[in-house]
Amino acid sequence: MSLPASPATPTATITSVVVTPVAFADPPLLNSVGVHEPYALRAIVVVHTDSGHYGLGETYGDEVHVARLQRAGEFLVGTDAFNINRISERVSASLAEDNGAGGHGTGGMVTTTSLDDRVLSAFDVAAMDIQGKVLGVPVSTLLGGQVRDEVEFSGYLFYKWAGHPGFAEDKWGAALDPSGIVEQARKMVDEYGFKALKLKGGVFPPEEEALAIEALRAEFPDMLLRIDPNGVWTVDTAVRIGRRLEPILQYLEDPCLSIEDNAAVRKQINLPLATNMCVVSFNDLPPALSAGAVDVVLSDHHFWGGLNRSRLLAGIAETFKLRLSMHSNSHLGISFAAMIQLASVTKNVDYACDTHWPWKLAEDDVIVPGVFSFEDGKVRVPTKPGLGVELDNEALARMHQQYLDAGLKKRDDTTYMQSIVPEYELKTPRW
Amino acid sequence: MSLPASPATPTATITSVVVTPVAFADPPLLNSVGVHEPYALRAIVVVHTDSGHYGLGETYGDEVHVARLQRAGEFLVGTDAFNINRISERVSASLAEDNGAGGHGTGGMVTTTSLDDRVLSAFDVAAMDIQGKVLGVPVSTLLGGQVRDEVEFSGYLFYKWAGHPGFAEDKWGAALDPSGIVEQARKMVDEYGFKALKLKGGVFPPEEEALAIEALRAEFPDMLLRIDPNGVWTVDTAVRIGRRLEPILQYLEDPCLSIEDNAAVRKQINLPLATNMCVVSFNDLPPALSAGAVDVVLSDHHFWGGLNRSRLLAGIAETFKLRLSMHSNSHLGISFAAMIQLASVTKNVDYACDTHWPWKLAEDDVIVPGVFSFEDGKVRVPTKPGLGVELDNEALARMHQQYLDAGLKKRDDTTYMQSIVPEYELKTPRW
Ligand SMILES: [Mg+2]
Ligand SMILES: [Mg+2]
Repeated sequence: MSLPASPATPTATITSVVVTPVAFADPPLLNSVGVHEPYALRAIVVVHTDSGHYGLGETYGDEVHVARLQRAGEFLVGTDAFNINRISERVSASLAEDNGAGGHGTGGMVTTTSLDDRVLSAFDVAAMDIQGKVLGVPVSTLLGGQVRDEVEFSGYLFYKWAGHPGFAEDKWGAALDPSGIVEQARKMVDEYGFKALKLKGGVFPPEEEALAIEALRAEFPDMLLRIDPNGVWTVDTAVRIGRRLEPILQYLEDPCLSIEDNAAVRKQINLPLATNMCVVSFNDLPPALSAGAVDVVLSDHHFWGGLNRSRLLAGIAETFKLRLSMHSNSHLGISFAAMIQLASVTKNVDYACDTHWPWKLAEDDVIVPGVFSFEDGKVRVPTKPGLGVELDNEALARMHQQYLDAGLKKRDDTTYMQSIVPEYELKTPRW
Repeated sequence: MSLPASPATPTATITSVVVTPVAFADPPLLNSVGVHEPYALRAIVVVHTDSGHYGLGETYGDEVHVARLQRAGEFLVGTDAFNINRISERVSASLAEDNGAGGHGTGGMVTTTSLDDRVLSAFDVAAMDIQGKVLGVPVSTLLGGQVRDEVEFSGYLFYKWAGHPGFAEDKWGAALDPSGIVEQARKMVDEYGFKALKLKGGVFPPEEEALAIEALRAEFPDMLLRIDPNGVWTVDTAVRIGRRLEPILQYLEDPCLSIEDNAAVRKQINLPLATNMCVVSFNDLPPALSAGAVDVVLSDHHFWGGLNRSRLLAGIAETFKLRLSMHSNSHLGISFAAMIQLASVTKNVDYACDTHWPWKLAEDDVIVPGVFSFEDGKVRVPTKPGLGVELDNEALARMHQQYLDAGLKKRDDTTYMQSIVPEYELKTPRW
């Protein structure tokens, strides 16, 4: 039998890394630390190689994080985009003298993620994008192969004002009570077809938020429901509200902030606890497992070190009987593609994944449009080589100009809230 | 900027799987369950695809295992060799009605490995070999990229007879006491340059084996030393011998059989415990970690589900502060290539890996020779596409004929020992 020869070994040495902060319009979404500012920040990472290909990554746009990305990018020049292990080493080397302060990109809500993994993520994604493009395979193939060709998302409901002060009202209108939340849910479900809904809580007294969940149940009898107060409830409050919502919720997300407190809650309620706040790095897994603090980890490749490290998280979850869901921050299309590629290869994604996608204006993105569409809450997995999205350089320039015009240097929901509601105080736990 | 187009998406659909049992000459190596038979058995798995490429896997040759491989192979026809997740699903489907009995390939020494992972392994390796050949990259690249270009091995010392009864003596001669072991070590170190030595124990009374370790220390002052009694010591014996050898050993391997007993030993000695007997599947990890039973896991892609699953094991080890070494059974060149590719991408392989390679006759193999050579105990990682080894079809036919002529259907060190030493009894613990 004559065998086909293998092609010449493909190479793709990194020649330059360009990090561009961008801003996109974001509605006034309320949360436990304040309210989303008029613009959300992201950093777009474009990794160029001597093969002529480029790879895309997207991550937090906080100034400190952007500076770290730029420094890491310099450390990566000359590195093989096919060697993720070496990329990880180089990123860590770039951070060796870094004190790790700031740049978490979550407005203060999650501040204990791994510095190295947080910076590595966008480069891991970009390298996988390059590998896929050079080899002619989608990232899903490089990650072990699709187990599904569409990924299910949940609708992400927020208490919100009708618009930012000084800006026009957005299309969603106000949602400040149960009926406002139900109305928002109706719009979102009608447009996207979601079968699961998550309410961002921690904004109003817990009993009011429980009423909103109960109103959603009344309006959508078959909907899978979650609430996430972002860790601002006391153990007693979490137990009280948890018990009340036991028959209604799919899971309760981060009722309290610490592993210890969530473990105490879990012992007293018969409801899975999910987290993207107390288990946010590989270091958190051993103590959380020992404590029995959580049932569900919301993975997020942006702070778990990228796609390859998120596969590790999934394997650990399977081994230690944790369930998996997926966390979302305000994001653009590159992150969406990465989230979808990852979910498409992860058999133990047990729940519809979170996404902020509906809150973003369609025209606010840096990728060539038309890749993603929702049907019944699901998005088809791109099958083109790499991530399956292409950079729109004009859009990138426009979004960068928007960043410059917005004048924001980091996400700070609290200061923005206090500029509107001066008596607003940060408080954990709040109730 | 004009960008290079991606190549057409490569495909490689599995068209057939050929499983061939082979036998190769094996010296009379003594262990806790008897003695190696004159021939060691392996199964060679050749996966053919519609791209014209073939992928190689190597695993246990026990008859029951071969039958499972053949059945799994039938389930894999039509599956994409680029989709490891789907391959895993299909292998598991082929085993759905299987009671899991037998086919462990370890002569009864390790019987609690995962059935699915044990069968998946060779197909995972073969699929990675195919992917690498189709794409033009070594398997190491597909596994995340080399962190080292040579892999260090340890010399694997055995008590042994001078030859099998009825066969000519082998080149190693007898080793039945400390001076015999030192002599064997000297030969092996001179030829291969090993900087670490492991003594297979569990054969003679523990004090005699401790004397052998002490004799090795006297002869090789800088050598890293290990002993592996394969779980046949009591807790008391393990503590007594462990304390005696504390200043000399790099680690103590499986002094006792169970997680509980090894945990009890570990609490009483100041020496890392290693295992390839009480932590042999992902299911064993949570209880072993809870018990604090072991410090070092000897990974083995043959029973941990292949190369991708072994990467998961490495990530779990890193996360949960376990150290990694690598286990070996009697093997041929395909397994050696797979072990080397894996070790080359695993940053936390903390010790020189075990291998039986020196015990094999050079002419007994199924691959085109000349790929592997030792220098200072290290082997250079192949960089050709795939595993970096090629099947020698004539050699395969010869080794299969040797299998037919040997008439062995499964590894059974105990029955063979009893055919020579009728009063030999299997006993755990023995001392
Ligand atoms: Mg959350
Ligand atoms: Mg062992």
